[in-house]
Amino acid sequence: MFVGRITGSVVSSQKVEAMVGQKLLIVEPLRVNEKDQSDLTPTGRSFIVVDTVGAGQGEVVLCVQGSSARFTPETKKLPIDAAIIGIVDQVHIGNREIFNSKD
Amino acid sequence: MFVGRITGSVVSSQKVEAMVGQKLLIVEPLRVNEKDQSDLTPTGRSFIVVDTVGAGQGEVVLCVQGSSARFTPETKKLPIDAAIIGIVDQVHIGNREIFNSKD
Amino acid sequence: MFVGRITGSVVSSQKVEAMVGQKLLIVEPLRVNEKDQSDLTPTGRSFIVVDTVGAGQGEVVLCVQGSSARFTPETKKLPIDAAIIGIVDQVHIGNREIFNSKD
Amino acid sequence: MFVGRITGSVVSSQKVEAMVGQKLLIVEPLRVNEKDQSDLTPTGRSFIVVDTVGAGQGEVVLCVQGSSARFTPETKKLPIDAAIIGIVDQVHIGNREIFNSKD
Amino acid sequence: MFVGRITGSVVSSQKVEAMVGQKLLIVEPLRVNEKDQSDLTPTGRSFIVVDTVGAGQGEVVLCVQGSSARFTPETKKLPIDAAIIGIVDQVHIGNREIFNSKD
Repeated sequence: MFVGRITGSVVSSQKVEAMVGQKLLIVEPLRVNEKDQSDLTPTGRSFIVVDTVGAGQGEVVLCVQGSSARFTPETKKLPIDAAIIGIVDQVHIGNREIFNSKD
Repeated sequence: MFVGRITGSVVSSQKVEAMVGQKLLIVEPLRVNEKDQSDLTPTGRSFIVVDTVGAGQGEVVLCVQGSSARFTPETKKLPIDAAIIGIVDQVHIGNREIFNSKD
Repeated sequence: MFVGRITGSVVSSQKVEAMVGQKLLIVEPLRVNEKDQSDLTPTGRSFIVVDTVGAGQGEVVLCVQGSSARFTPETKKLPIDAAIIGIVDQVHIGNREIFNSKD
Repeated sequence: MFVGRITGSVVSSQKVEAMVGQKLLIVEPLRVNEKDQSDLTPTGRSFIVVDTVGAGQGEVVLCVQGSSARFTPETKKLPIDAAIIGIVDQVHIGNREIFNSKD
Repeated sequence: MFVGRITGSVVSSQKVEAMVGQKLLIVEPLRVNEKDQSDLTPTGRSFIVVDTVGAGQGEVVLCVQGSSARFTPETKKLPIDAAIIGIVDQVHIGNREIFNSKD
C-alpha cells in the first residue's frame, strides 16, 4: 500500500454503470523524505482512487492498488484498481513521529 | 486509475477471437502539473485500452489497469489489462477547476 | 496493453511442463514519438511473451500483461504474465497514420 | 518478492473494518549494491505492508506484492497489496555473505 | 516474463508456513544491450524468486511475475509474486545468437 494526500477530485457523468455514485478522488503519493527521514514529501504523481472510508480534501490516506482494491464490501464489484482503505493519523519512523493529522 | 487523453487508435485484423469488434484506442496518461497544479500535462507514455463508454478522439478519460479492466459487462471475457471506464467532465485540485471538457 | 516489435526469441529446454511447446518471443515496447508524434520509437526495454496469433520476427504486435495474459484459449493454464493478442496493421494518431505494417 | 528494512509504522484509526487490528509497517526496499555487490543499499522508496510473521523495527524482511499478499492464512480476506512473509537471516551473492541479521 | 541471472540467495528461517522448504533465489533482470543488441546486460535491479525447475547460481533463467507465479504445480498455494519457470539455453535477436548457456 502507499500513503498519499487527497489533492482533488474527478467528475465523470458518462461512465460504467457500476461506478455511478462513486466519488473519484485524486491522491498524490507521499514518500518518506530521503535526506533525513523527518517528514513526508510529495512525489508529483497522481492516482485516481475510490474512497471507502469518508476521507476528505487534504487528508493523508492509506491506499491499496491492484485487484485488492476490490476486497472491501463497498468495492467488490467495481472495475477499479485503487482505493482508499484508511485515514492516516500518524506516521512514525523509528520512534520519531513524522506526521500527525492533528498538526 | 489514471486520467488520460485519447490520442489515436490501433488497427489489428489478426487477433485473439474474443477481441474481434473491440476498438483499440491509444491513451496518453496526464498528470497534474507539478509546478503550480494549474492544469493537466501529458506524460509522454502510451497505453492501448479498450473503450466501454463510447469515448472519442481527443477526449479525456478515466482508465483502469490490471485485472479490474475485466470487471465491466463488456470486458469480462477479454484478455485485456486496461479499459476506459468513464469520460472526464471536470478535474478539481482543491476548489480550483483545472480541467473542463467544455473548454 | 502495449504495442511492441518482435526482436528475437528465447530457447529454454528445461522448463515448467505446461510451457513445453510454447514459443517464447522477445518484444521491445514502442512508444509514440514524444516530439512530433510522427512515428513509433523503441523504448529499449525487453519483455518475454507467449504468442497466440502466429506473429513473426520483426512484426509489430499488441501485448497484454498480468493475469489477463491467461485469458485466451491457448494460454489459460500457463504460468505467464505477458502474451501477444494481435498483430498490428496500422497505428493512427488523430487522423494521421504513423505506422502501417505494409510499409 | 523484494527484501526491505522496516523503518517505521502507520497509525490509522478510521479504516476498512477488515483492517482493524492489523499493524501497518513502513518498509524501504533494499537492493544489492551495484558497484561491487558487497552489501544491501536503501532505495529511498516506501511501501506500507501488513506483517504476518512478527517482524519488528529495523529488521530486514521478505515482502510480497500484489494479489499474492492475500495468500497467507492471516491475510486472505484483507484488501492489501503487500505483506511481509519472512524475516531475512542472511543474504548471499555467490558464495559471499553480504547480510547477516546477527551482525 | 523477463530473463535474469541468478546472483545469490536469501535465507529466512522465520517465515509463512507455506514457504518452509522453498529456496529463495536472487535474480538480476537482464536486458538486450541497447547500443548494438549484441548481448544481454545487467539492469542493477534485484528480485527474490522461487525456483520451480532446479536452477542454480549463475544460470540465466526465465521468470514470471504477479499472480501467474502461482500457476505451476509447485507454487499454486504459495504467497509469491515471482517464480523461475525455465532455464534459458539461448537468446536470439533476429538471426543472431546473443546468449548461449554453453559459452
